[in-house]
Amino acid sequence: MKDVQNSRDRRKIPIRKVGIKGLRIPVTVMDRANVSQHTVATVSLTVDLPHRFKGTHMSRFVEIITARRGDISVRQIGAVLRETLERFDSETAQIEIRFPYFIQKAAPVSGAKSLMDYECAFLASMAGGEDPHSLDLVLEVRVPAQTLCPCSREISDVGAHNQRSIVTIRARSRALVWLEDLIAIAEAEASAPLYAVLKREDEKRVTELAYSRPRFVEDVVRGVASKLRSDRRITWYEVESENIESIHNHNAYALVVGPDSGPDRPAPVRKRRSRRR
Amino acid sequence: MKDVQNSRDRRKIPIRKVGIKGLRIPVTVMDRANVSQHTVATVSLTVDLPHRFKGTHMSRFVEIITARRGDISVRQIGAVLRETLERFDSETAQIEIRFPYFIQKAAPVSGAKSLMDYECAFLASMAGGEDPHSLDLVLEVRVPAQTLCPCSREISDVGAHNQRSIVTIRARSRALVWLEDLIAIAEAEASAPLYAVLKREDEKRVTELAYSRPRFVEDVVRGVASKLRSDRRITWYEVESENIESIHNHNAYALVVGPDSGPDRPAPVRKRRSRRR
Amino acid sequence: MKDVQNSRDRRKIPIRKVGIKGLRIPVTVMDRANVSQHTVATVSLTVDLPHRFKGTHMSRFVEIITARRGDISVRQIGAVLRETLERFDSETAQIEIRFPYFIQKAAPVSGAKSLMDYECAFLASMAGGEDPHSLDLVLEVRVPAQTLCPCSREISDVGAHNQRSIVTIRARSRALVWLEDLIAIAEAEASAPLYAVLKREDEKRVTELAYSRPRFVEDVVRGVASKLRSDRRITWYEVESENIESIHNHNAYALVVGPDSGPDRPAPVRKRRSRRR
Amino acid sequence: MKDVQNSRDRRKIPIRKVGIKGLRIPVTVMDRANVSQHTVATVSLTVDLPHRFKGTHMSRFVEIITARRGDISVRQIGAVLRETLERFDSETAQIEIRFPYFIQKAAPVSGAKSLMDYECAFLASMAGGEDPHSLDLVLEVRVPAQTLCPCSREISDVGAHNQRSIVTIRARSRALVWLEDLIAIAEAEASAPLYAVLKREDEKRVTELAYSRPRFVEDVVRGVASKLRSDRRITWYEVESENIESIHNHNAYALVVGPDSGPDRPAPVRKRRSRRR
Repeated sequence: MKDVQNSRDRRKIPIRKVGIKGLRIPVTVMDRANVSQHTVATVSLTVDLPHRFKGTHMSRFVEIITARRGDISVRQIGAVLRETLERFDSETAQIEIRFPYFIQKAAPVSGAKSLMDYECAFLASMAGGEDPHSLDLVLEVRVPAQTLCPCSREISDVGAHNQRSIVTIRARSRALVWLEDLIAIAEAEASAPLYAVLKREDEKRVTELAYSRPRFVEDVVRGVASKLRSDRRITWYEVESENIESIHNHNAYALVVGPDSGPDRPAPVRKRRSRRR
Repeated sequence: MKDVQNSRDRRKIPIRKVGIKGLRIPVTVMDRANVSQHTVATVSLTVDLPHRFKGTHMSRFVEIITARRGDISVRQIGAVLRETLERFDSETAQIEIRFPYFIQKAAPVSGAKSLMDYECAFLASMAGGEDPHSLDLVLEVRVPAQTLCPCSREISDVGAHNQRSIVTIRARSRALVWLEDLIAIAEAEASAPLYAVLKREDEKRVTELAYSRPRFVEDVVRGVASKLRSDRRITWYEVESENIESIHNHNAYALVVGPDSGPDRPAPVRKRRSRRR
Repeated sequence: MKDVQNSRDRRKIPIRKVGIKGLRIPVTVMDRANVSQHTVATVSLTVDLPHRFKGTHMSRFVEIITARRGDISVRQIGAVLRETLERFDSETAQIEIRFPYFIQKAAPVSGAKSLMDYECAFLASMAGGEDPHSLDLVLEVRVPAQTLCPCSREISDVGAHNQRSIVTIRARSRALVWLEDLIAIAEAEASAPLYAVLKREDEKRVTELAYSRPRFVEDVVRGVASKLRSDRRITWYEVESENIESIHNHNAYALVVGPDSGPDRPAPVRKRRSRRR
Repeated sequence: MKDVQNSRDRRKIPIRKVGIKGLRIPVTVMDRANVSQHTVATVSLTVDLPHRFKGTHMSRFVEIITARRGDISVRQIGAVLRETLERFDSETAQIEIRFPYFIQKAAPVSGAKSLMDYECAFLASMAGGEDPHSLDLVLEVRVPAQTLCPCSREISDVGAHNQRSIVTIRARSRALVWLEDLIAIAEAEASAPLYAVLKREDEKRVTELAYSRPRFVEDVVRGVASKLRSDRRITWYEVESENIESIHNHNAYALVVGPDSGPDRPAPVRKRRSRRR
């Protein structure tokens, strides 16, 4: 059968990224306690396509992912991207692996144990011909937490509005950083962390903790950024905080990117290209 | 060209509903202040299909909606369904019109005016051969509001966790009920209403108001239900409250349906069938 | 500390359902091949609340789920609901467990193996005081498949528009039915099943298969319904088909419910009430 | 009352963006036919915050948007951003306005008229102290269209799989470009455009048109890019195509960015900062 994809394209337009999106597979992720955790990932895998080729072979992307039988932990990502570069003979390859990640937490007073879920992701890319260390990896964690408004607390005789807030951290590092490390920083800089199970004594503690630590979205992103900035392992970070405001039907939002010398986005291809300039 | 849809089907299986979903159109809705409001609706329109017909003609559904040029207010729904019954020669027709609805609100202290948005819907159906009054109409409003936890307030020395909550009301009535009427009831039974604009003095007032009116999701649905129950116009209601908990990553939920003598759902076909029983 | 939830409520309004929604946990599901499969579930657990009680204890719902350590297979649901009824001393309890479910499939020609994902759910309820067999369980599968338009094929000189379609089956049964059984029926009644990996020879086969089996959404729901109707194990079913139309920006939709003698919805509470009538 | 937001922050961390997200308002947009169109927009408005200030005043963002009474057409965006820069005394301001946009189309054979909806957006920013012309504006259109697989058509004896595909164009220009212009390019480069109403004769035409114009996602992004590249008005573009594959449960995706000399992203702040370097 004719291989349409391999036919010539004459428009002289190279394709930055081509591949698959939204492939769901069960995966195992190694967590800090060195226990492998079962979850479900949504994966996208792409490569660049030189201007002369009409198309790529989509089934290969799925084959590469499927062949790993769900083992696409941080340690495997480099190998996955190298294999992708080779099979597609491409210059660059990018992968995004998004998955809910679970951490067992103990309620602050009762010690009642429960699992909290966090949306996490590995955003990685690699450029062909370079050595394994050329892997560009960004860890992303989306951490739900509580924020209590400093202004509301200051001006009100009683109470203060608070809400669920989503703190997102994306970070590059020169040494291994666990998702748990980033999640812990986000929870420490919000007004209070969330729990799946809270007994009454725990609810009292969490309520009073949040009241004692009012935080604007601006405070949260700065608090997280200052910890990441002082972490020797971290080379780049992007921190967002978004409040599901309890007094408005829209959200409050803040973003910090750093260090200023660093790249603006977890976009390896561009990062590499800017280096070349 | 052969009309495939009109060919015979021999499986003896009547189709309960067939039609279109997700059709988006700009619409005008008349609001209580008798000002026509421009918004965008997502519409589904369906009919039943007797077992002997293979298929329906999907384009007709869109033609019926399009021909109204965006005027599908409550007053028009009966006409739309009658036309649908006639063009499809069907026994029943159902329509769902979902749209964001806007109400201008003044902040409680400063009086600063702003628009609040609410997800609303007209859920209607009609049975063929019956007179115009057979129209079955359910109004639905989804009202974002603030709820402050009575337990958290009671047991904590300071503060109380609160959050954005979504209060949903579905109601049938024997006389005209405005979306504004239902929205007002939902906001009055939560701990505090939301606003798009709040100056500092307003934020103080709203914060203290919520603290003075703690509400569980159970309190909200009961408060709303008791008002609907005592409203002579209302013949059936379904009330839901869902808290985007600020201390958990899951939601708290409550549902009340009434009056007990009434039908369980805004599902006209079933309602009619239960009448037949 | 005062137990606010246990205080009296005087509004005389019983609550139909109260509990938690959106709790995510890793679970293991036993599949037909008797291999336990790891996935992630989103759970809601609710009970009714008599009019005299002000509130329920939300943390208990999470404790009940958490205590199962992810083992909430069909065999466990009865026990989970019985425990819920007992701990809350409630008349009814309802649970919804939604999760992506994976089945290994072999491509039709090359035999290339890959995993397909399906959104599945266990929708169950139980009424207090009844024996274990009173468990009301509805299985739900959402099966993505291909549908090719019979009208388009009939009237066009070449080709026929086709698209991804979502076939949803909800079923009650008197004997064990596997999710795989329902998924197989849905895929057999569409124009063609989907696969994660298709080599060129497979793509040729699937394309020609779909062209040889044109199906309207009406055909799909009738085809599935006729198989469910003739399945001795099935006592009730609801079948939906929704085409992500490739020639429109809205969807085509069809619904069949049967058998006509059966209840209209997988809503156990209502089902029970209708029994009482 | 104390102005908490104006208090000092000593962490020396400037905030890249702070403001509101998800504010919904009715808006009027002027379309190419110079008819003002009513729709509903979701708006985010942000500014940078110097390291020395603790917080910003969120209510001002809403006031600025609300004061426009829904008139935030392209012509108004510059004024909105200038006002934002002045009221916040900030260096940069960014706005995102997303809305469904409607265009009346006539079916290809019957000429039947109907409205098609497209997700569009104005993504703009401005840097303080610069003249009005410093406005950086990116137009975004998300165009649903049909793509028919060239490989499937080539290798199959009959038919070819096709599906709904979303073509996204983001573009900067030196002269006025209408949303209609970009939408027309996207529809012309897919296998066929979509319509809300198609009579049988139209369905035949569209089916045969798509069969005669097979397109991979790679073809679509290249076709669109080559037209944008040759359009004197366009100074930068980013083109994506994503197929809701009818033979898979995942999507096929392609991205082209150009011209190569241009910036990588519609991120005005960065664009400006990189110029300064």
